[in-house]
Amino acid sequence: MSGVITANPALHAALKEVAAEMDRRFDALLKVPDDPRAPLYRAMRHATIGGGKRLRPLLVFATARLFEVSRDAAGRVATALEAIHVYSLIHDDLPAMDDDDLRHGKPTVHKAFDEATAILAGDCLHALAFEVLADPATHADPFVRAELIADLARASGPSGMAGGQAMDLAADGAQFDLGTVTRLQQMKTGALIGAAVEAGAILGRVAPEGRVHLRGYAHDLGLAFQIVDDLMDVEGDEKLAGKKLRKDGEQGKETFVSLLGIDRARQQSRLLVDQAIDHLRSYGAEADLLRAIARYVVERDR
Amino acid sequence: MSGVITANPALHAALKEVAAEMDRRFDALLKVPDDPRAPLYRAMRHATIGGGKRLRPLLVFATARLFEVSRDAAGRVATALEAIHVYSLIHDDLPAMDDDDLRHGKPTVHKAFDEATAILAGDCLHALAFEVLADPATHADPFVRAELIADLARASGPSGMAGGQAMDLAADGAQFDLGTVTRLQQMKTGALIGAAVEAGAILGRVAPEGRVHLRGYAHDLGLAFQIVDDLMDVEGDEKLAGKKLRKDGEQGKETFVSLLGIDRARQQSRLLVDQAIDHLRSYGAEADLLRAIARYVVERDR
Repeated sequence: MSGVITANPALHAALKEVAAEMDRRFDALLKVPDDPRAPLYRAMRHATIGGGKRLRPLLVFATARLFEVSRDAAGRVATALEAIHVYSLIHDDLPAMDDDDLRHGKPTVHKAFDEATAILAGDCLHALAFEVLADPATHADPFVRAELIADLARASGPSGMAGGQAMDLAADGAQFDLGTVTRLQQMKTGALIGAAVEAGAILGRVAPEGRVHLRGYAHDLGLAFQIVDDLMDVEGDEKLAGKKLRKDGEQGKETFVSLLGIDRARQQSRLLVDQAIDHLRSYGAEADLLRAIARYVVERDR
Repeated sequence: MSGVITANPALHAALKEVAAEMDRRFDALLKVPDDPRAPLYRAMRHATIGGGKRLRPLLVFATARLFEVSRDAAGRVATALEAIHVYSLIHDDLPAMDDDDLRHGKPTVHKAFDEATAILAGDCLHALAFEVLADPATHADPFVRAELIADLARASGPSGMAGGQAMDLAADGAQFDLGTVTRLQQMKTGALIGAAVEAGAILGRVAPEGRVHLRGYAHDLGLAFQIVDDLMDVEGDEKLAGKKLRKDGEQGKETFVSLLGIDRARQQSRLLVDQAIDHLRSYGAEADLLRAIARYVVERDR
């Protein structure tokens, strides 16, 4: 959502508020120590403060709102989710991976610091996410903490985000079909989006069987988000995006756009957003922010 | 302990048993999927199966034995600790970090596979460690699971292992004094050794105030271990060690040996082992394995 303004005033306010809260929380979490670890902390601050769409934190807050979860608990969980997301960006941008120089309009961590610091900064944010969740300050009930941790570990590990990234590595010129690309993206991006929504419900002490509609929402939202990302990669403006675009085509990777074409991809993303919103039909006005987020995902693409 | 045989038959049996159990557990945890993630899983298997001292798992088992913890719970926790240790070795060996080609007598992961796979394999083992701990199969009580996770996250993050590694990066030619080297090593190696002992006590439901002696044991053991590592780096045989030696001297890094000299370093390691064993004086024969491990740490150096 960097560089894009939404027409929905409630969403606009929520986006601003969440961005400010994330900056504040990472600033408090990552005070630079007066010892040789200072560059490590500066690298973590560079990556976490002042940038990014904050989509996953927003989803935690928007879901937590359905169940009257305390703002502080949601804020801590949102920080953990975002820490995992940012660690994955730092590692994905490394020369051995996607080799990107720019992220959120700033130099990537290995460019602003060095590769070793980038690897370690990613590893530290990864550990910090679990440290934040395991802290009794996040939730007094250890059952809730353990469930949040299981949710995040699953979503970020080899059957989630990191597994999707491994499939993505194998995708160069591998001629994946639509089913494989869908599965890849569900793991690489969808799993953590799903974990953000799920975390809001876990904080709300909703039993797994009560989370079915929210899971459906997150599933469709995650796919729509990725299809729009693929559309923006083809049609977007690098300045507005704050990162290098059109890399998939150069690398010969199949995407939703290469497999479906621009028109069908756009149609599919809108269908998925309608479906996502439909999953929320049992909720009233308290789910309007979740609905606005879903609409916003396709609004980005124009 | 690779390539070294202990004279203590009970320790020898325990080492063999733990090594076999870790191989078995990683084999079961890391079944290679029939999809594009196969190289990722093969890389994780390469790093976790069939090698390594298994010191941290052994410490979990040896401590758990004091409190009649189930063998399966200890085995799961030992797997998580070892997964964190192995992920850190994979990342430390990367070209941007220590740039090592050999580990446990085998090619390092980025040599046997490639850098991107090595980065992701490390990230996945990191996530898997927390997934294993968060699983109710590890312990029925979520309070115990949450405490195990907090213990491991703290020990592996920026105030533990990864922070120590960041200090180590800054150590090249930085003329650290003995206090700084001690702190660096307590973070880099000592924190995870401490977490292994602490995890055994957490599984045994020992309250924090009851863990003081065990913490003392782990603290002194961790330092003795690192001093002996520094001695072996200067005096050891690369074939037996299964990795490149004498790198610290080449890089101009201060170590316990460069700061204390060989004789005082050796003296210090033996003093620390005596101290470590002394911390166990309130325990009877059930702590003999912990005592044997401490003696073994200096036995390695000859």
